[in-house]
Amino acid sequence: MASSSVIENIYLLVIVTLISVLQNAFFAQKVEKIGKTHDSHPSAFERVCCANRNCMDAYSTFLAVMWCAGLCLSQAPAAFAGLLYLFVRHTYFVGYMGEGCQSTAGFLFGKRFIGFLFLMCVLGILNHLLAFYLSTDYTDYLETITRAASVLLLIP
Amino acid sequence: MASSSVIENIYLLVIVTLISVLQNAFFAQKVEKIGKTHDSHPSAFERVCCANRNCMDAYSTFLAVMWCAGLCLSQAPAAFAGLLYLFVRHTYFVGYMGEGCQSTAGFLFGKRFIGFLFLMCVLGILNHLLAFYLSTDYTDYLETITRAASVLLLIP
Amino acid sequence: MASSSVIENIYLLVIVTLISVLQNAFFAQKVEKIGKTHDSHPSAFERVCCANRNCMDAYSTFLAVMWCAGLCLSQAPAAFAGLLYLFVRHTYFVGYMGEGCQSTAGFLFGKRFIGFLFLMCVLGILNHLLAFYLSTDYTDYLETITRAASVLLLIP
Repeated sequence: MASSSVIENIYLLVIVTLISVLQNAFFAQKVEKIGKTHDSHPSAFERVCCANRNCMDAYSTFLAVMWCAGLCLSQAPAAFAGLLYLFVRHTYFVGYMGEGCQSTAGFLFGKRFIGFLFLMCVLGILNHLLAFYLSTDYTDYLETITRAASVLLLIP
Repeated sequence: MASSSVIENIYLLVIVTLISVLQNAFFAQKVEKIGKTHDSHPSAFERVCCANRNCMDAYSTFLAVMWCAGLCLSQAPAAFAGLLYLFVRHTYFVGYMGEGCQSTAGFLFGKRFIGFLFLMCVLGILNHLLAFYLSTDYTDYLETITRAASVLLLIP
Repeated sequence: MASSSVIENIYLLVIVTLISVLQNAFFAQKVEKIGKTHDSHPSAFERVCCANRNCMDAYSTFLAVMWCAGLCLSQAPAAFAGLLYLFVRHTYFVGYMGEGCQSTAGFLFGKRFIGFLFLMCVLGILNHLLAFYLSTDYTDYLETITRAASVLLLIP
């Protein structure tokens, strides 16, 4: 799309998406590498497969929520929350390879970040509906609040 | 994105996406809950895992078709068909937990809705190409027709 | 979305997405068909399941990269690379059904195309940042280069 105005509103989201793609490739390479030597350690292979599965199951959901939040309200906090989610996902994957397979559903990690992005979407849509029906505009307030709230996500 | 015109054209799609995310979270929690007590009922765990897998496999496809249909033609019928698909998916998941694992590919449910959304995309693109090359514009007709056809989806 | 300018910039991407959806449906039908007769050939069922899994695991990543590349830089080369990727995926799936299950992660095929799309995204974002901070505009150069480079992807 030649119009730079479109890119301006999504380029942070694109950057986070690219980082997540790199991470997916890293996960896949780990699975592949362990899969080639998997006669020796069958349980290690199963663990890494399980971790990869859980991560990939939640991936579409994560992308959908992040992009919706970025389009509906403001891209900077959405991209920031997305980045934190990717960081937690990395910790989860590396940690998972160490322990036994717990068959958790992959939503156990990063719930806070998905929840935050979800809330951003809801606020963005409410704001749009209010603006449409009542002609009030809280966009600036909401952007300031979500920007401040996204910093709070750093608290462990 | 600050410009409200963008949100105006996608907010129904965002709402359906949010509902699907909630549903995914519900599925994941079911898997997690049964997984924790899964020593007692291994087959129940496998069934719920299988249902979750089938649902998640089709999820990316569903999201892609719904958003394409909404962007290419008209968001209201696309969101409506998406909503019906989510309803069928719920029925499928709940029903699956009851019976044995059939290892179906997850495309068995909601074929009609995916097909309808697919047709909407095709019509939208044909309409665009016709408008581009022949300068005819059937957008209003198509919107009326898809709106009427989406009601027909309610027939079981 | 009624404004045809939006569709104009994405309709090639939508077409490739629709083809990928058809391919997914083809894969799912294969799984379903073999699953119904799977008492006789358990290993054939496992192979086709494995191939389907690997393809679906990489699907979200593929869609995300293709759309980002198309939005950030230019839709024609992105759609072309996407089409080649789908072709390679088909070859992979059909080939997989023949041999034994290798438990590869599904990133083994089409790395080149994903890499090309990834590079397109990076170039598009760099171009946007350069245009924003230095007021230089290389968009036309980049579009010509990526169009030429996309032809090189045809070399086996």
